[in-house]
Formats: sequence, C-alpha cells, structure tokens
Amino acid sequence: MKIAIAQLNYHIGNFEDNLTKIKGHIAKAKIDGADIICFGELATCGYPPRDFLEFSDFINQSNNCVESIKKESKGIAVVFGAPTINPILEGKDLYNSVYFIADQEILHIQHKALLPTYDIFDEYRYFEPGSDFNLVEYKGHKIALTVCEDIWNIGNENPLYTICPLDEYRSQKPDFIINVSASPFSYDHAEERLEILKANIDRYKIPMFYINHVGAQTEIIFDGGSTVMSPDSSIYEEMPYFREDYRCYDLKSVQNGLQSIEQPKNKILEIHDALVLGVKDYFEKLGFNKCVIGLSGGIDSAVTTVIAQRALGSENVRVLLMPSQFSSDHSVKDSIELAENLDIQYDIVNIEEAYQAYDKTLDPLLGDLPFNIAEENLQARIRGMLLMAVSNKFGNIVLNTSNKSEAAVGYGTLYGDMCGGLSVIGDVYKTDVYTLANYMNKDGEVIPQHIITKPPSAELRPNQKDSDSLPDYDSLDVILEQYIEHRKGPKEIIAMGYEEKLVKKILRLVNVNEFKRYQTAPALRVSSKGFGMGRRIPIVGKYLS
Amino acid sequence: MKIAIAQLNYHIGNFEDNLTKIKGHIAKAKIDGADIICFGELATCGYPPRDFLEFSDFINQSNNCVESIKKESKGIAVVFGAPTINPILEGKDLYNSVYFIADQEILHIQHKALLPTYDIFDEYRYFEPGSDFNLVEYKGHKIALTVCEDIWNIGNENPLYTICPLDEYRSQKPDFIINVSASPFSYDHAEERLEILKANIDRYKIPMFYINHVGAQTEIIFDGGSTVMSPDSSIYEEMPYFREDYRCYDLKSVQNGLQSIEQPKNKILEIHDALVLGVKDYFEKLGFNKCVIGLSGGIDSAVTTVIAQRALGSENVRVLLMPSQFSSDHSVKDSIELAENLDIQYDIVNIEEAYQAYDKTLDPLLGDLPFNIAEENLQARIRGMLLMAVSNKFGNIVLNTSNKSEAAVGYGTLYGDMCGGLSVIGDVYKTDVYTLANYMNKDGEVIPQHIITKPPSAELRPNQKDSDSLPDYDSLDVILEQYIEHRKGPKEIIAMGYEEKLVKKILRLVNVNEFKRYQTAPALRVSSKGFGMGRRIPIVGKYLS
Repeated sequence: MKIAIAQLNYHIGNFEDNLTKIKGHIAKAKIDGADIICFGELATCGYPPRDFLEFSDFINQSNNCVESIKKESKGIAVVFGAPTINPILEGKDLYNSVYFIADQEILHIQHKALLPTYDIFDEYRYFEPGSDFNLVEYKGHKIALTVCEDIWNIGNENPLYTICPLDEYRSQKPDFIINVSASPFSYDHAEERLEILKANIDRYKIPMFYINHVGAQTEIIFDGGSTVMSPDSSIYEEMPYFREDYRCYDLKSVQNGLQSIEQPKNKILEIHDALVLGVKDYFEKLGFNKCVIGLSGGIDSAVTTVIAQRALGSENVRVLLMPSQFSSDHSVKDSIELAENLDIQYDIVNIEEAYQAYDKTLDPLLGDLPFNIAEENLQARIRGMLLMAVSNKFGNIVLNTSNKSEAAVGYGTLYGDMCGGLSVIGDVYKTDVYTLANYMNKDGEVIPQHIITKPPSAELRPNQKDSDSLPDYDSLDVILEQYIEHRKGPKEIIAMGYEEKLVKKILRLVNVNEFKRYQTAPALRVSSKGFGMGRRIPIVGKYLS
Repeated sequence: MKIAIAQLNYHIGNFEDNLTKIKGHIAKAKIDGADIICFGELATCGYPPRDFLEFSDFINQSNNCVESIKKESKGIAVVFGAPTINPILEGKDLYNSVYFIADQEILHIQHKALLPTYDIFDEYRYFEPGSDFNLVEYKGHKIALTVCEDIWNIGNENPLYTICPLDEYRSQKPDFIINVSASPFSYDHAEERLEILKANIDRYKIPMFYINHVGAQTEIIFDGGSTVMSPDSSIYEEMPYFREDYRCYDLKSVQNGLQSIEQPKNKILEIHDALVLGVKDYFEKLGFNKCVIGLSGGIDSAVTTVIAQRALGSENVRVLLMPSQFSSDHSVKDSIELAENLDIQYDIVNIEEAYQAYDKTLDPLLGDLPFNIAEENLQARIRGMLLMAVSNKFGNIVLNTSNKSEAAVGYGTLYGDMCGGLSVIGDVYKTDVYTLANYMNKDGEVIPQHIITKPPSAELRPNQKDSDSLPDYDSLDVILEQYIEHRKGPKEIIAMGYEEKLVKKILRLVNVNEFKRYQTAPALRVSSKGFGMGRRIPIVGKYLS
C-alpha cells in the first residue's frame, strides 16, 4: 500500500484555491500509484477559520468542496479535514472532522474529540467534541483516523482531557494511524511534536502518518514538518519546514523503519525562516506584493528589512530614511549601507519641516510648556504618516518594526513607530533580534556591523538611549519571558534572584500598556505566547499595575 | 428571612477596591438585619478576568479576599462568586464558583455548570464545568445556588448544553434560588433576561434572587437590573440599570408576590445610558478624568462629545476644531455652538500649514501624482496627531468618534479619525446615531439642529459627501445588521429583497477591512454583536472578499 502526504499552504475561506491545490495533489498521487492521499485539518476552509464558521454560507461552500473532492476520488482514497454539521440539536452546531473518501464514496467521517481551547485556540467556541471511535477499513487495512490534538493525550495523561482517542481504538486493532493536523509553529514546538509522536508510537507500536499545514494565516505560522513514524518509534521521515511538500510512502518500508530523515532544529534559523514565510504569506494572501519600511539606523528596522527583502524580493521593498535634528549622522549612513547591501529603493526625507509646522500649529495649545514625550511622539508620528502616505499612494503595506521587548513595556509611539499592517518581529525579544542579525550576516555582512554594535536609541531627543528609560535588555527579556511565556507571578520571579523593584516595575509596564498593544498590528507568532489572539488581557484591569 | 442584594461595579484585578466594596455592603446588610447578602459572579476579581486567571498569583489574591470576606461574615451569610482551584489533576485548573459563607464558615461552594464559550465569552478556556449539584441549608431554608448561565438552559431546551442545573436540584426541593451573574448589556438583552427568569419560575415555582454586575470593563458594559422573582412568576422587583444599588428583601413578601417594580425599557435610552457609563468607567478604572475630542461639525463627533460631557463633566471635556481648506464654514460654526451649549473648552486649530509642510516634504516621493486618498488621509492623520499631542501633553485621553457603519465598511482613516483610546459609538449604526442625537435634544437643543440635518461628509476634498462612496445609510445599516448581528450570508440577504451587487459590495467591504478594525480602539458594546472580542475574523481570510 502506498500513502501520499500533501503538506499544503491553505488560505482561510479561499475555497477555490484550496480545492485547486487539493485536486492537483490528488492527480499527482494517482500518477504515483498511491492508494491513499492525506491532507491537513480543515483543509477545505483553512485553519483557523474563526467566526466564519458561524455563517451557514461558509459551511455550505466547504461542503461543496467536499462534493468536488468526492468526484476526484475515483481509484484513490482521500483523507482530509473539513467542518461537518452536527445533526443533533444538542451541542455545538459543528464538528471538526476528518473525511475518508474512496472511489466517490464517503467511507468514514471521524470527529475530533479533543478540542484545544487555550492560547490561540478557540475550538470549543465552534465544535462539539466527537465521542464515537471507529476505524475505517480500506484495502485490507484498518486505519485509525485522528485530528491534531487527538494524539496529544497519550494514555490520558494530559490533564486537559478525559478521553484518549487512540486508547479507544486500541481494542479494534488498527494497522496504522493517520493524523490530520494544523499545529502552529513556535520555536520550541518541533521537538515537542516529535516527542509526542514518539510517545504515541511507543504506546501503540504501529505506523503513524502525521500531516501538518504549512504557511501563515495572519500572525499564526504553520511550519509543516509532517512526519511518518515507523512502528519501532523511529522517525521514518520528517518533511521540510516552512514550505509546501508532497511525498509518497510505501507502507511496507515504513513498517520496516529505516529511512530516518529529520530536519535540522535551531531556534534562530527556525525563527528566521518562520518570519520570512510569515511576511510572504501575509502579502500573498491579501493580494499585495510591495512593502515600505521606516529605516532608523537601528537594529529592529534593519532586521525587519532583511526579512522583508528575503520574503518579497529587493524590487518589492522600499525604505524611507527620515532623519530629524536628533538623528545621528551614522543613522543615515548605516541605513544607506544596508539599503545598498539589499539592493532596495531608499529615499531620504527630512522631517524637520513637518515638525516645525506642527510646532507652530500647536503653539496656541501647548504654549511654552517644556519639550517632553508629546514632542518626542510627534516625530515618531510624522514618520508614521509619511510611511502611510507612501502606502496610500503606491499600495505598499507598511511593515511594523517593533520588537517584543518594546511591545511588552510600551516603549513605542502609538500611530507612530507602532504603525503598520503587520508586525514582523513583534514576538522576538530584543536579545534575540541581535542573534537574528548576526545569523543574517553569517555568509557575509548584510547588516552593517555598526548597526549591531551601537547602543540602541530612539533618537527622539538629544543623546537619548534606550537604557535611559529601560533596564538592560538582558534582564528585561528574562523577566518578560518568565511573566509572559511562563506566566510566573512577581513573587516567583523575585525568588529567581531579580530585584523586587525592577520586577514590579516591569510587570506594571506590561500591564498598563495593554491599551497600546490592543491597537497595534498582528505580530508574527514565533514563541509559545505571543501578544495578540493567544494572550487576552483586560485593558482596564488593575492587576500588578 | 431577609435577603440583601448588592448590585456593584467591580474592577477587574483590583482586589483591594472590590473587597472594600463587598465589606462595606456586608456591614450595611448587618445593620438592616439581613440574614443573607448576595454579590455578583467572580466578585472578588471582577468579570471577565480573562488570562489573568492563568496566573497563580492572581488566584492567590482572590483567595485572600475570600478569607477576608469569611472574617466579615459573623452573624450573616455572604453569597458571592470567585474562582476556585480544581483539586483534581484532570480537567481545567479552575472552577467558576459561588461561595456560601456564614458565621465565618464556608457552608457550600457550588461550581458553575454551564460555561458560555461564544461571542465575548471564553469560559471553557479557563474553567472546568461543575457536575455535582447540592443545595445549601441555612436557617431552615434549602437554597439552590447557581452562577449566571446555569439558569439559561431551562428544561434542557438550550441546544448548547446537556445539563439543566435547576432540574438537578429539583428532587432536593429547594425553597428558593440565588443566581450570581455577570450578564453583559446589549440593547435587546434586558427583556430576554426577564423572559428567562420568568420561564425558570414558571417551571420551579419558587422565588429567585438574581444578582447582576453593573459597570463597564473596557468595552463590555454590565447594566445591573438585578431582579427578585416571586413564585407566581411575577417580577417582585427589577433593580435600576447602569448604577450601583443595594436593596434588602423580606422573603415572605417576595413569596407573596406583590411589589411589581420594573425598569423602563427603551432601546435609545438604554444605549445612551450605557455609553455614558461606559465612558465614565473607562476613565475611572484607568485613573484618568479628562478627554479630548476632534469636533468636525458632523453628527458622530457631536454625539460622542455629548456622551463624554455627561460622563465626565464639562470641565473634563476639551475639543479641537481642526478645519482645512475643504471644511465648510458651518462646520466650525456648528461646532462652536455645540461646545458653547455644553460649556466645554474648545480650540480652533487650522491644519493647512501642517498639510502644506507634508505636501512639501512628500513632494520628492509623490511628485505630480493626482490628489487622492493619500492626501485625504493626510488631513485625517494630521488631526489625529494634534489630538494625540494634546493627549500626551496634558493627559487627556482621545475619544474615538467612528460609528459602527463606518467601522464596518472601513470608511475611516487608520491613525487618523480612527485614533483614540476608546470608541464611544463604534457599536452604534449611523441611523441609530441620528436617533441618539434627537434623544439628546429631547429637553432642549444640545446638538445644533443643523448638525443633525445636513448631509454627512468627511470634508476631505471639495464638496465630498458620504453618499459619494457609500450606499444610503438606511440600506447599509439593515444589510450590515443582517450580516453582523444575525450572521446571514449573501444569499439570505439578497432573498430579503436587496440588490445582489449592493449586498456583495457591502459584505466584501466588511471583510476586507478587518485589518483596520484590528488596530482600532475597543468599542463600547451595546448590540448583541459588536466588533472586537466578541467577533473574531481572520485578517488574511478570503471569504466573500
């Protein structure tokens, strides 16, 4: 028996494109003589479809796709995820299901039993959990069909759930397992995923075909890494990360367990590739191709620009250098060098005249009050406006250049440097931005070394340094990670050896700046806890603030 | 037996203030000789605490409150909601519980069984549903304790749930029901709530004490309307909307069923009062008191300003009139008249000089390209920047003036007129904004009549009218409501008699503008489906777009 895996980049709600891709791969699998071809979770409609699921028209369009796929299944079995309607009045209206269609007949529909409802996941908002577990028989093989989370409660040891679907199948003696997934990337997730796959096979000792999505849906990035496991718990093959792929496997060979292909794992490499894919897909899926970025001479905008150039190509990246009276000479010089290294269009636009005009316009309102954050923010907002003017005139999407450390403590100007359609490095701490920059330079200097080595500064007043208002990034990032990724409270972080005053100050800054993050662009998620849909904090809450 | 109800405005995470309020009302109830005093759902920590619940420090602080309340309960029973820890490894870590504490002893803890996970609710993200149902006995009475949604599945007829908690209690023969709630306002919710209460009493024929929250938590507004029901299904008393209140009831009188006090119900009156409370609480809970608004001469900013003045007082509202070469004379004149009617500070700041400076600065980039949306947006963004400058210099929060119709179709400038910390009328359709304006003028002209009668215009180019780019608001609003509030698809709306081209255009506009709404302020929620946390749509989705 031959089993094909299509690791695809779906587009939420774009039924036509998703169907075209699925049909194309069915045709390919037929040519390869595959008996079964497998796609991802909710492959018809993309993942996560979120509240689109509440529209019956949306479900109808997905059902039309299922009908089309059925027509294509002559001589082959097609396994794919799609929402199905719960026929019983009681419970949620839908199931998150996996279809097994062969020879134009639906042989089986299995409903996802474990519905993740945490972090970025809201599945219980839409879906009723499945509770019947039946194998499908095909060409003499008994197959256990599962959807994503269904394999994440091995032997019922995951405290979130009370059912272990594969344990339910056990007595029916399946020959192998298929799991259709949409499991989002974070830099520590690939290893965890392989551990889970191994732990499953340790328990059941049969092959598993694990099919993941690849591609970004706004901030959520799917990394692929679809995996075939042999019954001896060895990895038969882990498919590539961050790109579509298709492979056809001989079940016998998988059972014998030899191939052993695994992808290299490296935090910064993965973050880099994830961000490039994230930018690429954001543009492609929205139907845009050009971006514009404000290049300050600092490391954040430099790294963002390199990502953009690698995602969109030099011809589609444009940068504005927008010096003021507070900008250092090297800011412009370094930026020009970077732009030339990347072969991208740059323009220098001095903001002093616009600043003077505001100053004059505001004079009757502000009078002789001393220069403070109002004037600092004016500069950042003028820059934001110039970027948006280019965006509106030429159709370039502005890319936001804030990093996660800044976003966390509110070190940025709303409608100024916090503007843009997509935050590229908004889930990357400043210390990791440096590592990224060095990684980008590994095969020769792309980012001028001076951008990496000079002390970070917003350059909004004379001789300003980030360190004037923020703790050093090494401590800041560790404390932030404990609070944000690991949900540690002040006492626990202080017990790690950090000064009480510093910890309380940082946690307070995180919480009082929720209003700013609420209004900023979605940030490509590369950690286990990004700002945005996976972290839901009340703005007017008064906790640690 | 005397039962007191405290309908309070809690503050999420502000344990100290919440505890002070609770203690104060326990003391009051003791003076009144009450046997029981009842508070709302999750009263210790406020509702909805969202991901704060994931911090064990947060739960510890709530538990400390419970201990303090226990100490205050000498001679009285105190009923209130709080999160409790699920002692079993399996399942979610917490319960959403109601405590019954009397004479410094916890007599009972009942866990919420029905966990809303739809619209703005994410309870299954945090809580394990309760499954044991036991009455508490106190002073010879058997009491059924329930939490909010627990009474919304009468006789198991709500398809979302499979358990009816009060049916479970039935065999234990309770004497009356207490329901601690946090049930958010929408303009059609109060009547629905009373129907549910009546339907419960029709079934169980015992009194019910229903205690709701009042007050706004960012965009979610709780309207109060706590209600005591007599066993004959008559309303004994419905407490006031939109303000804190405390009452003490004699159980005998309630059983006899006579008092019959109900609050007036009127969509526009309720929306008006909800918005005033929403603005007031946003400022109070964030510790601010002053706002600044851009007054354009149009109806949206006029209505927003009246709401602000009624919420914060004339001395705390400041407006900027920011005419350009495209502004009509009457815009400034009408705005001055409104400001004078409201007795608020106004300044006139012409934006032409700033606009010219941008024009000059951008000239090398934009050259001779014709005037278009880029230049229109520049004007809106200059105004946004001036408002933010006042905000940064003096600490006034900018109030956003966009209405729901505009927000829906993206008729607004990101970082321009879409700026601000809170969107006041962002959940009010344009046609309702007119009704609101007329309601505000019911006791004498507050909003100059000309603002209400003139055709709406953004005044960003010569003789611009909203009707140049948008369908008339009457059709637009009906189609939007069908799509947004009622989740009707294109076919269903076209079947209602609307032109196919128009319907498809509007639905497309709603979907392609998700990126704009993502970056705008939270909007006070007054409908059953507001933009924001209750409506979750993928930005890069390609559905009807």
